[in-house]
Amino acid sequence: MHDEITFVEGGSVTTPAGFKASGVTAGLKASGKADMAMVYSEVPANFAGAFTSCLFAAAPVQLCRRRVLESKFLQAVVVNSGNANACTGKPGLDNAEKTCEAAAAALGINPEAVMVSSTGRIGVNLNMEKILNGVALAARALDSNGGLTAAKAIMTTDTVHKCAAVTFDVNGRKVSIGGMTKGSGMISPKMVLPHATMLCYITTDAQVDNALLAEMLGVGVDGSFNRITIDNDMSTNDTCVIMANGKSGAVISAGSPAAALFSEALGQLMKHLAVAMVRDGEGVTKLITVDVSGARNREDAEKAARAVANSMLCKTAWFGGDPNWGRVAAALGYSGALFAPEKVDVFYNDKPVIRQGQDAGTPEKVLAAEMAGREFTISCRLNAGDASYHIWTSDLTYEYVKINAEYTT
Amino acid sequence: MHDEITFVEGGSVTTPAGFKASGVTAGLKASGKADMAMVYSEVPANFAGAFTSCLFAAAPVQLCRRRVLESKFLQAVVVNSGNANACTGKPGLDNAEKTCEAAAAALGINPEAVMVSSTGRIGVNLNMEKILNGVALAARALDSNGGLTAAKAIMTTDTVHKCAAVTFDVNGRKVSIGGMTKGSGMISPKMVLPHATMLCYITTDAQVDNALLAEMLGVGVDGSFNRITIDNDMSTNDTCVIMANGKSGAVISAGSPAAALFSEALGQLMKHLAVAMVRDGEGVTKLITVDVSGARNREDAEKAARAVANSMLCKTAWFGGDPNWGRVAAALGYSGALFAPEKVDVFYNDKPVIRQGQDAGTPEKVLAAEMAGREFTISCRLNAGDASYHIWTSDLTYEYVKINAEYTT
Repeated sequence: MHDEITFVEGGSVTTPAGFKASGVTAGLKASGKADMAMVYSEVPANFAGAFTSCLFAAAPVQLCRRRVLESKFLQAVVVNSGNANACTGKPGLDNAEKTCEAAAAALGINPEAVMVSSTGRIGVNLNMEKILNGVALAARALDSNGGLTAAKAIMTTDTVHKCAAVTFDVNGRKVSIGGMTKGSGMISPKMVLPHATMLCYITTDAQVDNALLAEMLGVGVDGSFNRITIDNDMSTNDTCVIMANGKSGAVISAGSPAAALFSEALGQLMKHLAVAMVRDGEGVTKLITVDVSGARNREDAEKAARAVANSMLCKTAWFGGDPNWGRVAAALGYSGALFAPEKVDVFYNDKPVIRQGQDAGTPEKVLAAEMAGREFTISCRLNAGDASYHIWTSDLTYEYVKINAEYTT
Repeated sequence: MHDEITFVEGGSVTTPAGFKASGVTAGLKASGKADMAMVYSEVPANFAGAFTSCLFAAAPVQLCRRRVLESKFLQAVVVNSGNANACTGKPGLDNAEKTCEAAAAALGINPEAVMVSSTGRIGVNLNMEKILNGVALAARALDSNGGLTAAKAIMTTDTVHKCAAVTFDVNGRKVSIGGMTKGSGMISPKMVLPHATMLCYITTDAQVDNALLAEMLGVGVDGSFNRITIDNDMSTNDTCVIMANGKSGAVISAGSPAAALFSEALGQLMKHLAVAMVRDGEGVTKLITVDVSGARNREDAEKAARAVANSMLCKTAWFGGDPNWGRVAAALGYSGALFAPEKVDVFYNDKPVIRQGQDAGTPEKVLAAEMAGREFTISCRLNAGDASYHIWTSDLTYEYVKINAEYTT
């Protein structure tokens, strides 16, 4: 079934039928780069959202959670970069509401059908004159080929825009799912429904009800964004929203083969976008997959994988191309997962590094060669059970320190 | 009572009566620097130890745990730097035993009264020819003024040696406690009794039984080494050992005012050594105290303090001198501690940064000035309860990345 799913060249949120998008300059960024995006569905769309589990949830996140609980349909999303509208209290909430109202007025729709997201500096009130002007510009600029422009307007420290789309057939009808995402620092999302500053917007022209959308988004987030880490810093603004407008005419019902296909396609798209975020992470030169297997249970597997993925000593060794597996062993050992150290095997790609808790004897040169590529996998077999977990992480570089010591986000 | 405790200028493990120490070059370090230390008590000493909670505990740590459980007395400690003897299996354990036996033979004591510690590269077998030669040299070099030399011989990436001693009177008798410690990377100890690569050796000429020593060491570790973090990477080799040889003639009994005084003096010494480790941490330019108060309970307070102290975004902002308090808010928010964000106040030293979850309005210039010093405190008042916790941490710098990407530990 999986071979039926294909990635669309140049795909974006406007690949699915009936969606328009735009990216404009509202003037929030000192650089003068595009800083506001809008995604619009020609008809009211079913929707679902997942949001940061940080207690300091930004004003727009608070508003979006309410939409998920109270609104039946969604028709537009407004996103500004350059200001996170987080830790801004009641004025922040009011500003988020006003942004929705302005977008609704410009689009001739109900404010309850509009969501807003913000990313950038925390703790500064939005310049509402610029925001309102931007909303008007974005509404006028909406275009059925605007997906790429929108993806560029939501970038902050990202160096490349990140968008994609997949397509597949459901009962003879072509269905598309498109998505865009941003985020390269403060990346360690743990998004919960309906409660990651990564932002991700997904569109589809399938017809899917809100409950099934929420269920599939939850599975998708768990297999993608919640499995990436760049700096282990969860954001106040992480948001992932999906809109389904039914324009393809294909109906996806719970429990159907079509739902399984849709869920698989959604999963592939989300994984693609999540991994793209790590590759474009702040100062990142390498993408490392940490794959833990043989754990007592899933919780232990996740603890072990996260300990290695977030270890500053492992991350700097990866940057340096240093096989230093003692750092991997130490991280597994302090992770909180339970296992017998003398049973642990570790591989860099397919080369054995640790055998039964000790040096596997593979020459350092061979191991260093495996780490020289831009991507490699560290497999940790705990041999304590049947559970597994994998996570995508990055190295820690001079550039990361530079970006975050010298740049105010 | 506290004013009775004074730090001794040039104090070390040989400040207490009846202790000798040495530092020699066994040849384990390519640099040719001193790499083996010995601490020796003229008479059998009571003792207690606390060790890493990392599952991959190094061979010497496994041996030391057994000593704590099985030996009544301790008379010597041998420490090598340059090789951690971790992840070395049965040969590693055998080598640790042989080191003790050689030291015992050279000193004319029982091997059960000797402990061994190692720090350096993980996963490489000790060169026993060099170790045994070093042990013989170290035994011959023992000197009642050798504390400083010993402290230098246990350094790895440390840039300064770290030793100190305190003295106080107990019933007219002068009691001293001396200590030495090393460690500047892979520092986030969580040592447990009798199960931290920081190493710390403490000597005292008081007479204290093993049970009371263990109790006071536990309290001391909890208030000092277990509250420091440089890179959030716990080591396979962390070790803290105290030896009490009774040579002062002062007896410290459980529940006595003398025990309270001893415990306070021990705490001051251990805190002094722990904070010295952070100041000398790999690439560290700043010492930051993160002080959380008003938490629901101690566990929440510790979670919140550790989240801020280990946040890569906070640590890089501190390096850059960037007041960026949004990163502190985000870390508190994802820490797992429960509180109402709109009630949270944060201060940099005495300057308000966050008031009730929002910008306190203190000009950035004023905040930046507070952060310009080599040391400052971030106080986070959660206003959710009465519990508090503080931790000492460091900034994250280019130099840290350099040391750990380019140097193999």
